[in-house]
Amino acid sequence: MAVQTVAGTSTTTPAFADNPHQNSFGPAVALSCRECGTRYALTPVFACQECFGPLEVAYELPLGDPEDLRRRIEAGPANIWRYAPLLPVPADVTAKQNLNPGWTKLVKADNLARELGVTGGLYVKDDSGNPTHSFKDRVVAIALEAARTFGLTTLSCSSTGNLAGAVGAAAARAGFRSCVFIPHDLEQGKVVMAAVYGGDLVAIEGSYDDVNRFCSELIGDPIGEGWGFVNVNLRPYYGEGSKTLAYEIAEQLGWRLPDNLVIPIASGSQLTKIDKGLQELIKLGLVEDKPYKIFGAQAEGCSPVSAAFKAGHDVVRPVKPDTIAKSLAIGNPADGPYVLDIARRTGGAIEDVNDEQVVDAIKLLARTEGIFGETAGGVTVGVLKKLIETGQLDPAAETVVLNTGDGLKTLDAVAPTTGPTATIRPTVAAFREAGLA
Amino acid sequence: MAVQTVAGTSTTTPAFADNPHQNSFGPAVALSCRECGTRYALTPVFACQECFGPLEVAYELPLGDPEDLRRRIEAGPANIWRYAPLLPVPADVTAKQNLNPGWTKLVKADNLARELGVTGGLYVKDDSGNPTHSFKDRVVAIALEAARTFGLTTLSCSSTGNLAGAVGAAAARAGFRSCVFIPHDLEQGKVVMAAVYGGDLVAIEGSYDDVNRFCSELIGDPIGEGWGFVNVNLRPYYGEGSKTLAYEIAEQLGWRLPDNLVIPIASGSQLTKIDKGLQELIKLGLVEDKPYKIFGAQAEGCSPVSAAFKAGHDVVRPVKPDTIAKSLAIGNPADGPYVLDIARRTGGAIEDVNDEQVVDAIKLLARTEGIFGETAGGVTVGVLKKLIETGQLDPAAETVVLNTGDGLKTLDAVAPTTGPTATIRPTVAAFREAGLA
Ligand SMILES: [Zn+2]
Ligand SMILES: [Zn+2]
Repeated sequence: MAVQTVAGTSTTTPAFADNPHQNSFGPAVALSCRECGTRYALTPVFACQECFGPLEVAYELPLGDPEDLRRRIEAGPANIWRYAPLLPVPADVTAKQNLNPGWTKLVKADNLARELGVTGGLYVKDDSGNPTHSFKDRVVAIALEAARTFGLTTLSCSSTGNLAGAVGAAAARAGFRSCVFIPHDLEQGKVVMAAVYGGDLVAIEGSYDDVNRFCSELIGDPIGEGWGFVNVNLRPYYGEGSKTLAYEIAEQLGWRLPDNLVIPIASGSQLTKIDKGLQELIKLGLVEDKPYKIFGAQAEGCSPVSAAFKAGHDVVRPVKPDTIAKSLAIGNPADGPYVLDIARRTGGAIEDVNDEQVVDAIKLLARTEGIFGETAGGVTVGVLKKLIETGQLDPAAETVVLNTGDGLKTLDAVAPTTGPTATIRPTVAAFREAGLA
Repeated sequence: MAVQTVAGTSTTTPAFADNPHQNSFGPAVALSCRECGTRYALTPVFACQECFGPLEVAYELPLGDPEDLRRRIEAGPANIWRYAPLLPVPADVTAKQNLNPGWTKLVKADNLARELGVTGGLYVKDDSGNPTHSFKDRVVAIALEAARTFGLTTLSCSSTGNLAGAVGAAAARAGFRSCVFIPHDLEQGKVVMAAVYGGDLVAIEGSYDDVNRFCSELIGDPIGEGWGFVNVNLRPYYGEGSKTLAYEIAEQLGWRLPDNLVIPIASGSQLTKIDKGLQELIKLGLVEDKPYKIFGAQAEGCSPVSAAFKAGHDVVRPVKPDTIAKSLAIGNPADGPYVLDIARRTGGAIEDVNDEQVVDAIKLLARTEGIFGETAGGVTVGVLKKLIETGQLDPAAETVVLNTGDGLKTLDAVAPTTGPTATIRPTVAAFREAGLA
């Protein structure tokens, strides 16, 4: 979503000096404009008053003996709160009612590596293990704690799927009202998932873009007071949740960085925050400072960042999405330019694969590692394959590829080409005739 | 399934003294008949030659300083293999390619407790966090390692859903061929889930009972040589996976036992093995010896064990299942008599709830704790509610209730009554009119 376009509604942004909630955000000290560096207090705002640039959380990180910090983290809970010293959350966050996502498996994918010719080690970071089976639980968890600190009482978002479920579930557990907005023509499965947690679910007669415009309008209206839209006015906090993917990958590798990371691009926020997390790990001395390459993955039917990368452009030209990878179908990715920066700075690349390749890659991951990924996982695995085939990614280097969601939520992608090998009568003779013995 | 009826096919059961794989099963020393105690070697057999009773794994448990064992477990991986010293698996099991299930969340369910009037503490053991989102990953993981030890090369099962996915995924990861049998009229979602991992999926023209009969026939046929049917000829090993639920609950409570456990009943195996696990923990000195009560939960449309409990019978009269809780729909539960024993011995009970109560309980769990459970989870939570209302379970005691699967797999149960609160045009005025502001 284009965060900038609704910046005008935030007319009450407090100055940095007025930080009213300083003690509730751990090492975070301000919001900072990604474009011009202007600082703001930690409040529910998301765009710079000077330049309309996106705001992000700025920290005074706990510099000190890295060994101490490592031990403190390792003694923490098996979820994202083990990294509370590096997140904008209160010190007592583990005492709050929260879904406690994260600490998902980093799977050593030797079978997939063999198929793809990767010899330097290949890992799948499998975020389908989160409470609502997508990485969105991570970002929502941080946004929720910010909402709690700000005294907001309704948790909201615009969504086409994963985020709606993550917000509904987190709000239910944490005792917030939730009110989630979706386009009216979503698949029934996603509607059920969004509604089952008992919050309000409002179907909007219009497209996802219409839903987004409506949400921006609602934030400016008196009705929106007390509301935290996780991906709008809480977006700076929300985004920080993706850093935990970087932390976990490094810790699960034994406190070191991989050579390559393959990350999906929707708004681009996840990729930029993973890079931010990796940089923090180096700064804190938690890992050795070594080069790493970040590769971005898009579906061909929504590949504006990949197109800009290949054309050598610094700006991203919006597109109208047309792909089965709906969780990545953001035609005007807000963080596109930052993603281009990161891919170029680290020596990575951005690639895209078509829908058929996405489906093939979902099946490849399932068949080799027993992981049934979402279409977004098909995009990253498919792009990894293409990067190797085109010589853009060194197969002798150590690579981590992300699966950010669950195949159960995107059954339609594989259903037309996935079914029984045979249908037979219940006799051994019939089985023998089917040629499967 | 009725294990006993196919006992006649196991004509080559080796005597105990011939144990050919002793070193590959850790503390396990034999298979032992649950009825007459006759011992057999650790081989792929499942029924006693003397009395047709079911065989189970017998151990020489590592008695010694419990503090040492506790430390060894706590230093282990965040999956079921932390309990390898108590399971029939080789010492190097963590080096094998396996889905590594387990160590799922034990969620302190304060919101649900408040709604149900539980004052002694309430926890949900949420097994939807497993790799294929059901507890079946636990049992399949143990069966798979047994299959590996026995040199079997095809992993198989009869299934109506969860087990098919668990076997397909585990076999893919571990490099086994898989060949899974399902009734031909399953819902598309379950078929996709069973087929996506690339093994052979065979639809059988017939009912689940027909599928089972066919599998028994196949085991006796030369075709079945080299095949491990996880829930038939590997059943003694398979069953042991459920013990890990007991271990995890106790460890996650800080190495102590809860007062009450509410466990679903399908074949009854899970409930009996959880009891076995709790008894082992006491015997090993890992937890204090204290009383606990085990409560069994069934759906009214398939409640033969509940009916026997209420009637004071020792035998279970088979029924023809008719319930939305299909993962529990076993009309002739093999372990029914043992379940009755355990409920009576521990001072627990067995109850059942109707389909409407199952749906209500799924929604209650989702709305209070943000956990979207399978129909089996609706059964346990619904039964917990009924046990409290009828005075059978003390709300001042500490209770653990199991959610063994994922709501995404049984969307049909809640879909008819779960949807948008409102459908509106994308304007603030329309939102205000809808009365949701
Ligand atoms: Zn600015
Ligand atoms: Zn016997």
